[in-house]
Amino acid sequence: MKTGMTADEINAFLREGFPGGGNPPQVERADGRVATCRMPYRENQLRPGGTLSGPTMMALADTVVYALIFSAIGFEPLSVTTNLSINFLRKPKPADLIAEARTLKRGKALFVADVFIRSDGEDDPCAHAVVTYSIPPRT
Amino acid sequence: MKTGMTADEINAFLREGFPGGGNPPQVERADGRVATCRMPYRENQLRPGGTLSGPTMMALADTVVYALIFSAIGFEPLSVTTNLSINFLRKPKPADLIAEARTLKRGKALFVADVFIRSDGEDDPCAHAVVTYSIPPRT
Amino acid sequence: MKTGMTADEINAFLREGFPGGGNPPQVERADGRVATCRMPYRENQLRPGGTLSGPTMMALADTVVYALIFSAIGFEPLSVTTNLSINFLRKPKPADLIAEARTLKRGKALFVADVFIRSDGEDDPCAHAVVTYSIPPRT
Amino acid sequence: MKTGMTADEINAFLREGFPGGGNPPQVERADGRVATCRMPYRENQLRPGGTLSGPTMMALADTVVYALIFSAIGFEPLSVTTNLSINFLRKPKPADLIAEARTLKRGKALFVADVFIRSDGEDDPCAHAVVTYSIPPRT
Repeated sequence: MKTGMTADEINAFLREGFPGGGNPPQVERADGRVATCRMPYRENQLRPGGTLSGPTMMALADTVVYALIFSAIGFEPLSVTTNLSINFLRKPKPADLIAEARTLKRGKALFVADVFIRSDGEDDPCAHAVVTYSIPPRT
Repeated sequence: MKTGMTADEINAFLREGFPGGGNPPQVERADGRVATCRMPYRENQLRPGGTLSGPTMMALADTVVYALIFSAIGFEPLSVTTNLSINFLRKPKPADLIAEARTLKRGKALFVADVFIRSDGEDDPCAHAVVTYSIPPRT
Repeated sequence: MKTGMTADEINAFLREGFPGGGNPPQVERADGRVATCRMPYRENQLRPGGTLSGPTMMALADTVVYALIFSAIGFEPLSVTTNLSINFLRKPKPADLIAEARTLKRGKALFVADVFIRSDGEDDPCAHAVVTYSIPPRT
Repeated sequence: MKTGMTADEINAFLREGFPGGGNPPQVERADGRVATCRMPYRENQLRPGGTLSGPTMMALADTVVYALIFSAIGFEPLSVTTNLSINFLRKPKPADLIAEARTLKRGKALFVADVFIRSDGEDDPCAHAVVTYSIPPRT
């Protein structure tokens, strides 16, 4: 049986695996039940109105669940998102974004997690997402 | 009353408004009921497994509805996404992505559209999204 | 290989299978690509404000996709909904509701469809849903 | 300014307002931040496969957020659901269902909450929903 990856191992994979994507978000914690990622604040994510872009938050939600799955079931790079639903709740501050994902279901075929995204230091969430990944069958 | 923007006007705005975002998707059609955007194929959107990244498709779904709203009700840059739900259906080919958005509801406060994303030249969709924007009140 | 069920066969199953549920919606068409169901107007679905209840429309969206799957892949009563996302767009009239489901993806493990719900005789949809079912593996 | 309703007041309204709906779920707690509803187990909610029906859980998710809004902002019977997205995670036991809703956003126009539904006495959720209501403007 595979064992879950550590946050350091996941970060190394994300840096290698996404060469064109600039800075991937940084995994700060990943223990198989909960994972936390930090997206450093960068000015070019700004959109009109001064808020961080929705696509930035969608990518962050997708990545933090990817990291959560790696920490839960081990290296499964071919896991793919099947559904992502996100509600944008408040304008983020010009600060790092912190995403926290929690496992809702760890099935054989589907992995479901919810994600709260907050501006660093804030209590109220900027966005809330629910993300489903399809896990490839073990051979 | 404001009149809807043309595809050319929307493209000019997207190029100016997103200076750090690289190439924004190109609006090919926008008539207030339907809008179509093309996302040129770029290698750095690739993720492990050889498919275009989910975040690329989420950003495209978000942008094509933004363009649809501009074509329907005029320049409203402070319109913000409140909900985006996307299902990933098939791996896209290494080709341009074409997104087509249709108006489901054009309310005073909320604008809802669905989006089909296909690889250029393909019939079957790679992804399907439903996107809700909140429209700022007219003063 | 199983063959798809006809609308009559599906109606017979729904009447038997849901004895406590009162009148199930009536399948009017089901051809493996598209399915249509009619929910007869009943006063006790009214909620405050005079509109048909949201739960009525959610149940209808769920059932029309269940019927679509039976028409597409044959009798699979253990197929279960994994995700349902619905947007309520307009208040329905006091009339029958017509739901039309279209196949978005017919995978081995997941079946995805979108659903438009309209008041009988109206063009604009009252609600739009996207529904995912998990299909049990064939043995 | 209106004050929030108590659980007893909300239960009285639900019993009066839904005369045809049989037994509405029972609000057990509602304090403006969190609301809890119990749906008593009834055999006629069973569907093939022995699980409680998805529509039962969708109706319960919708109602617990309706109750949460009443407890948060007072009597607003014309509040309407605009979006409901639900993931079905595990088969419920043949037991009462307990739904717990938490406020994610309390805006002037939109109220967003997430909902965990569990079989009474169980830790793992059967379903997880995110529900958005549109609140009518105050005059």
